[in-house]
Amino acid sequence: MPETELTLGEIHALARDCLAGNGCDAANAEAVAATVTAAERDGAVSHGLFRLPGYVAALRSGKVDGAAAPVVERLSPALLRVDGGGGFAPGALQAGIPALAEAAHATGVAALAVVRAHHFAALWHETEALAERGLAALACTAYMPAVAPAGAREALFGTNPISFAWPRPGDTPVVFDMATAAMAMGEVQIAARDGHAVPPGTGLNAAGEATTDPAAIAGGGVLLPFGGYKGSAVSLMVELLAAALLGERFSFEAAAADNKDGGPPRGGEFILALSPNWMAAGGPESGADTEAEADAGAGRDWAQHAAGLFERIGQLDGARLPGARRHHRRQDAGPRAVNAALVGKIRGLCEAR
Amino acid sequence: MPETELTLGEIHALARDCLAGNGCDAANAEAVAATVTAAERDGAVSHGLFRLPGYVAALRSGKVDGAAAPVVERLSPALLRVDGGGGFAPGALQAGIPALAEAAHATGVAALAVVRAHHFAALWHETEALAERGLAALACTAYMPAVAPAGAREALFGTNPISFAWPRPGDTPVVFDMATAAMAMGEVQIAARDGHAVPPGTGLNAAGEATTDPAAIAGGGVLLPFGGYKGSAVSLMVELLAAALLGERFSFEAAAADNKDGGPPRGGEFILALSPNWMAAGGPESGADTEAEADAGAGRDWAQHAAGLFERIGQLDGARLPGARRHHRRQDAGPRAVNAALVGKIRGLCEAR
Repeated sequence: MPETELTLGEIHALARDCLAGNGCDAANAEAVAATVTAAERDGAVSHGLFRLPGYVAALRSGKVDGAAAPVVERLSPALLRVDGGGGFAPGALQAGIPALAEAAHATGVAALAVVRAHHFAALWHETEALAERGLAALACTAYMPAVAPAGAREALFGTNPISFAWPRPGDTPVVFDMATAAMAMGEVQIAARDGHAVPPGTGLNAAGEATTDPAAIAGGGVLLPFGGYKGSAVSLMVELLAAALLGERFSFEAAAADNKDGGPPRGGEFILALSPNWMAAGGPESGADTEAEADAGAGRDWAQHAAGLFERIGQLDGARLPGARRHHRRQDAGPRAVNAALVGKIRGLCEAR
Repeated sequence: MPETELTLGEIHALARDCLAGNGCDAANAEAVAATVTAAERDGAVSHGLFRLPGYVAALRSGKVDGAAAPVVERLSPALLRVDGGGGFAPGALQAGIPALAEAAHATGVAALAVVRAHHFAALWHETEALAERGLAALACTAYMPAVAPAGAREALFGTNPISFAWPRPGDTPVVFDMATAAMAMGEVQIAARDGHAVPPGTGLNAAGEATTDPAAIAGGGVLLPFGGYKGSAVSLMVELLAAALLGERFSFEAAAADNKDGGPPRGGEFILALSPNWMAAGGPESGADTEAEADAGAGRDWAQHAAGLFERIGQLDGARLPGARRHHRRQDAGPRAVNAALVGKIRGLCEAR
């Protein structure tokens, strides 16, 4: 496929202008464009410009309010809710994440309920933002049915991603962000196009039978959770945390309420922030000789302790720290190769308005 | 294998007396015996009487203090630590769980760091106990190296279980509790004994090659995480939450410090409690017309909302709610069939003292 080179600044401007030209106010256009640009910067192209047509469709159909003003509410010292006001999630997160970090620094643990927002991006944006503030973070969100619970043959769960980040002061966080589906449907479609089989456990065909033929999965079949019934349990947990716990929509409810414009449905996101400064200090391995020393932060520090584990992993032939490949790509400040047809399509979406 | 029938009362007395006869004070013997009995009651036999010889070995070697008096410390309104004092985890949990529930009811979210405790039981005991108090709960703990990180050929992670429970007022919680290993080593050994192959992805042989031969895995090989690199990331998260975050030992550190008496090593456990009463009320789907109504708990309630998801799952042919099988076994108040040789061994451990 022909590609065109764009600088990160050009990617940002393209996304921002396209969103602004389709109903986003400046703040929301900036927030979404920053997320799109960070994805392209890290080589996470399926969450980059690739998503813009969906964002625009949701603005044009009126499903998403491009001028939404998110409101942060403090429910308790450890609990926050951000009402996205029916806008895109990046705006809600920009409002909620600093408040969540502040609460976690004040109490050691805090949770953020993101509601009435439309999520269409990776979750590492928010978990990394918390890790960069010295916090461990966990985030998850539901979507629309694409995955059959283990043992079943019909989709009920979303691809339900879960992200976790661990802070490394002075270094990039250790972070993972993964669908709880065995494989994203986009990857299955690419395998079908290229004529490659997918691994057993990826999905079922339209008759509900296990298959390694990606075309049979993409053509009326269904995805399976990663890791069989264990991954299915994790996916169920995501539905409960992102929907039942927050009073937001399950994947099947989101699909029923969605206008099918191709953009993101309304949903909830659960985010947890934990402070190692609070929790590790005074623990048995903190190295402090007395409780008073531990209180004063003496002894071996949590970052040094965790570095010992990462070093062990680094010594294992074949193992890799999650997030490392993406952070490596981030080092490159140069232009990015972007699908030329996609760029043309996005430019058309700006001008058509 | 010959089996003998014991009532739940007899199982409890056998465990309690054996522990008390080997150095446990009354409180610790009761706490561990309750955990063992609940496992036998639910048919979770690998966490029942099967563990008693290990508990006793740890008492006899002096690794575990049978008279430990756990201390609960409130680090913040949302954060608690229980210092197990070098005893078995059930005692520490008996002290910590009510305090954690109280904090979560007061602030909506709370975390408990369990440190200086020796964990040898399932985690559903503690997550279910929180769910029975109307809270969603997540718990995880590391152990000793048995699992190779994805891509590697050497064990570094423990089997690192993770448990999640969702409350259903008036009904048993929906709960899962699973090793992040593809399969427990005990199950691999049973497959080897019975001559069954294990699924691809279960483990590697001593040469570090993938195999479906359970004897090759059990005989000097290594387990793999469930679900490939995704499960490996979850297992890494467990190491970070249960050790780095709490200032406790990673699996590899626990193994290095352990005296290899066959009993549980010292380690940490991370437990999170979340209140749907707090978090769902006032959410978009709470059904309340006004904020004041939502505050008063009006509208559709979170339990009813979640029941809608469980009903959908129940309608899917082949799908099952996690925990259901165990809770079904719980209904049976009758005696349990226990391996006769094991019972004899445990009786010998009481008398030998």
